[in-house]
Amino acid sequence: MKISADLAKLLDGENGLVAVVVQEDESNEVLMLAWMNREALEKTLESHKATYWSRSRNELWVKGATSGNTQEVVSASVDCDGDAILLRVHQKGVACHTGTHSCFLNEIEISE
Amino acid sequence: MKISADLAKLLDGENGLVAVVVQEDESNEVLMLAWMNREALEKTLESHKATYWSRSRNELWVKGATSGNTQEVVSASVDCDGDAILLRVHQKGVACHTGTHSCFLNEIEISE
Repeated sequence: MKISADLAKLLDGENGLVAVVVQEDESNEVLMLAWMNREALEKTLESHKATYWSRSRNELWVKGATSGNTQEVVSASVDCDGDAILLRVHQKGVACHTGTHSCFLNEIEISE
Repeated sequence: MKISADLAKLLDGENGLVAVVVQEDESNEVLMLAWMNREALEKTLESHKATYWSRSRNELWVKGATSGNTQEVVSASVDCDGDAILLRVHQKGVACHTGTHSCFLNEIEISE
């Protein structure tokens, strides 16, 4: 796995997690924010199936393993300071466990 | 500020930071990932100028205050579990301090 020194340092650090922005390749819709450790990133890049680290369950989690709503990875990139990943995917079905296409479903009111 | 109970709990918690995905409204390009505390979110919603919490400098940071590359907020939404925000913005100039439009500039190689 060829990754930047910044990202490698983050993944090998105490916390060891990188934030992952997941964007649908066809629509450019932002679907969700998830987390990866080094193993999740390696599995994702090898299998092309988005695999995350669940911070609540403390385990690897192949997206869609239960629901069938898998994410096939199209491309992945790291940001300028190596602490976030953008994953572009083909989303099968919906991304959100609530049944909506994207997890960002609750609008916040902005002052006039 | 009307926000969900989940998000309020996060912002009032020990860490007190929420991850913010910043997407350009016109192009749907994902520009950057940043962090907000409660004050940053309040200032953002009131001023319509994206304001973040710098984890490295430990201070509030109005995006573009120095560079002029401000982000005018179009809409904001929270995800299903209340621990991430999607901010849609009009980006003035470039988003990245390296001079690129988006901060996600380093492609990661995917296995064939």
